[in-house]
Amino acid sequence: MTKKAICLLSGGLDSSVTLAIAKSEGYEVYATTFIYGQTHSKEIEAAKKIAKHFKVREHKVIGLDLSEIAKSSLISGAEIPTGRSAEEIISCKEIPSTYVPGRNIIFLSLALAYAESIDADAIFIGANAVDFAGYPDCRPEFFEKFQELINIGTKRGVEGNPIKIKTPIINLTKAEIIKKGLSLGVPFELTWSCYLGKEKACGKCDSCILRLKGFKEAGLKDPIEYE
Amino acid sequence: MTKKAICLLSGGLDSSVTLAIAKSEGYEVYATTFIYGQTHSKEIEAAKKIAKHFKVREHKVIGLDLSEIAKSSLISGAEIPTGRSAEEIISCKEIPSTYVPGRNIIFLSLALAYAESIDADAIFIGANAVDFAGYPDCRPEFFEKFQELINIGTKRGVEGNPIKIKTPIINLTKAEIIKKGLSLGVPFELTWSCYLGKEKACGKCDSCILRLKGFKEAGLKDPIEYE
Repeated sequence: MTKKAICLLSGGLDSSVTLAIAKSEGYEVYATTFIYGQTHSKEIEAAKKIAKHFKVREHKVIGLDLSEIAKSSLISGAEIPTGRSAEEIISCKEIPSTYVPGRNIIFLSLALAYAESIDADAIFIGANAVDFAGYPDCRPEFFEKFQELINIGTKRGVEGNPIKIKTPIINLTKAEIIKKGLSLGVPFELTWSCYLGKEKACGKCDSCILRLKGFKEAGLKDPIEYE
Repeated sequence: MTKKAICLLSGGLDSSVTLAIAKSEGYEVYATTFIYGQTHSKEIEAAKKIAKHFKVREHKVIGLDLSEIAKSSLISGAEIPTGRSAEEIISCKEIPSTYVPGRNIIFLSLALAYAESIDADAIFIGANAVDFAGYPDCRPEFFEKFQELINIGTKRGVEGNPIKIKTPIINLTKAEIIKKGLSLGVPFELTWSCYLGKEKACGKCDSCILRLKGFKEAGLKDPIEYE
């Protein structure tokens, strides 16, 4: 029987490469995209294109209004910081204003319910601890702890067959992620990383800066358009 | 400054007593009720009445459509088991069909985002391990593990001031919960426990059976009407 995997797909570069990795490992992929009031809804369109490109078995786009309960500049429409250098972003020990309280816990919880319902074996998430050291819910120890929670807190877990959290790109640099994606045929032109939802990517927000640096270091040209 | 607490309020007996305990400990209470496609939506009306009775600071009723992603007889409209004895329910080691995959993980995750946004100190949840031994996400070790996740996976946690998960009734019998509620002035006539959403409580589902046994053992009459 084909192994099934849930794949959290934001439409960004990291989650798209992660989905390609899940496919390359032989999983039948069930992609899941959450709409949570972020200003960069262009990601959702990107997610749909990526899901289609990789012929996922199912793509669930789930509305989740976090604006009622979670404060973040990604949700509230507050100004998103721009103009930092990649070095500043990566070395920053402070938790950025774009941090959404409990976001990955919420996403993983919902993915877990879905995984348990369709009897999937794994949940793939494109978290990255190199670029997002400031986000406590992007670190390896966070995912290890979530795995322990699954092992004791779910039916499958207590039956000795827990759903596995997979974070295949967690320790890769952006350039390494891009090279991996290239080798797996990820159509980077369909992905969207910019925190702003404009016609073209801004090139100045943390997400654009890290993406551009990654392509440069990988010796490649980013195929998307910038302002 | 007054301590703030999120209180998960289903409208049932356990969560209502838990809310009363939070109030009695001096917390300013922010009640949170999730609508997740359960057939017993009468609980929601009960939750509103309880929240009003205890003059909570805020009561958020959050829609969450789990029917897309989670299988359970509580969600799907499949037949809810009735006619078991309290002994059978309590001693049952099997996970019941009313188990909702990942439910408490999802609820706690959302409560956590809310708590972090309003700078609350605690999340109260009326989980009970005596009656619901079959549910892996109602056991003390599950909540301890979730606490560890909060400690490392949230901004407040890594700053050394984690939000605390409180499960004040987890080891109490139903009779003890009822006596506790009585001492704190919980209006039991406003609560709703039945898994079915009819005019009167059925008296036969697991939830009714446990409630009736609890009142009997506490030497009290349940003030709600049964069929």
